Amino acid sequence: MRVGFMGLGIMGSRQAANLARAGHELKVYNRTRETADAWAKEHGGAVADSPRAAAEGADAVITMVVDGPQVEALLLGDDGAAAGAPAGTLFIDCSTIAPADARRLGATLAEQGHGFVDAPVTGSAPKAEDGTLTIMCGAADEDMERARPLLEAMGEKIVHAGDVGQGQAVKVISNSVSAINCATLAQALVVGRRAHVDLEALLEVMGSGSANSTMLQLKGRPMLEHDFAPLFKLEHMLKDVGLCLDEARTNGAPFPFAALARELYSAGVGRGLGEQDFAAVLEVAEGLADTRV
Amino acid sequence: MRVGFMGLGIMGSRQAANLARAGHELKVYNRTRETADAWAKEHGGAVADSPRAAAEGADAVITMVVDGPQVEALLLGDDGAAAGAPAGTLFIDCSTIAPADARRLGATLAEQGHGFVDAPVTGSAPKAEDGTLTIMCGAADEDMERARPLLEAMGEKIVHAGDVGQGQAVKVISNSVSAINCATLAQALVVGRRAHVDLEALLEVMGSGSANSTMLQLKGRPMLEHDFAPLFKLEHMLKDVGLCLDEARTNGAPFPFAALARELYSAGVGRGLGEQDFAAVLEVAEGLADTRV
Repeated sequence: MRVGFMGLGIMGSRQAANLARAGHELKVYNRTRETADAWAKEHGGAVADSPRAAAEGADAVITMVVDGPQVEALLLGDDGAAAGAPAGTLFIDCSTIAPADARRLGATLAEQGHGFVDAPVTGSAPKAEDGTLTIMCGAADEDMERARPLLEAMGEKIVHAGDVGQGQAVKVISNSVSAINCATLAQALVVGRRAHVDLEALLEVMGSGSANSTMLQLKGRPMLEHDFAPLFKLEHMLKDVGLCLDEARTNGAPFPFAALARELYSAGVGRGLGEQDFAAVLEVAEGLADTRV
Repeated sequence: MRVGFMGLGIMGSRQAANLARAGHELKVYNRTRETADAWAKEHGGAVADSPRAAAEGADAVITMVVDGPQVEALLLGDDGAAAGAPAGTLFIDCSTIAPADARRLGATLAEQGHGFVDAPVTGSAPKAEDGTLTIMCGAADEDMERARPLLEAMGEKIVHAGDVGQGQAVKVISNSVSAINCATLAQALVVGRRAHVDLEALLEVMGSGSANSTMLQLKGRPMLEHDFAPLFKLEHMLKDVGLCLDEARTNGAPFPFAALARELYSAGVGRGLGEQDFAAVLEVAEGLADTRV
């Protein structure tokens, strides 16, 4: 397929490379032009001067940027992709944005005769590189089928979660559960320390029984060592929990554990931990109990 | 060793059988005498008429009953085991009781010249049967070493978590994390339903990514099917969360996620779900959002 790809950051550059490798014909756009030139030199394909130019003649347009306003500017702004796209172009947004924003974008594009798939991903740079991302999709069935060959070039597990917006909903709910499990682990370690239990023993018991979680396996040891080198920044986790709470509230569902997690991660940002890994929420839990794990 | 064993319920009868199989010489006591007679007929060993009699001539006395008051009555009550035990007897309590109660019992027994290990277990009847329980221990080092051959006959993973009481502390902290992870999963499913996402897709994404947990693997499917046949009763989980909060509070550590979980499980008991599996906390989450998963 002819693909306009916009956003060549850490994730996007690797996803675009996998699309090129799979034989798709890419035209790339990036805010910093030099990044796009360097990418095209390495992987082939054309460089577009504007989002509009990236979309001209394309079968599909893929975006991978930081937030909803950036996606909207690329697609619907002056010289935006929607203006250049042939009728019936398929737009795929891999950014993590609010489910409500995805639905609004999808509706606007539909009015212009285009298709839309919200397709946020999980997995970090190595999985983007290997094409083994998990991709959560919200789309009409026919758009989902058109998008599938492109998605399969970028990801290993492609899950269709419902209509437009539902891919984002799954992403932010799932990330919120991770955030809660991580903050719960932090509080459990703090209680254990205060009760003078051997924290190695506590981790061993929890990790081999019903208290086990991916968060415990990934963050337990770094918490004991206070190693918060960022794999996923605390401020980004806070953003996702906030998006989840917006989605829950709009739909009339309270999510009290997520609300509590937001308080803790917010306090973490207030303590200057926003750029650290979200496991640094441990320091907020330590502060509550005036102790150190 | 000569072992007095008290409490031949679902777990205790199987643990005692493994001790007999390992060559220890058992004298068993049970509140309902017929249970003890039947056990001895099948596994050999003697039957004691009273806790005191069970302890006479013993090297070690093991208890496996429902709560702290039952343990205390068996050990320190009229005709209790402590009165019959030779000086320097090792007491091992496998019940789940408050850490503070374990410490008090341990101190009283120490005044009488006895040793004490709190050794609560995790794992259900099949693991008790196979001798593959996890046993969390609080004890002085020398008591721990004396207890080890007995513990190894009953369990596969024996973890020494600190001084007397710390086995119980690890148990109730660990169970609280399970309770929180389970209630978080319930709320996530409810938010997903309200947001019209495909719940199978949500479970698949969460279960294959950073939101995964043992609770998700064990309770996700039963929640979607509203199958709450009890593996561990909701009212027992509520008891353990309460014990954890007591321990946290006494030690000056707030545990806000556990406090929130207690509210939800308490409301579950109020809705008549106490005898069901603790995954029935889903119904409390459903009630909060006025929807059904």
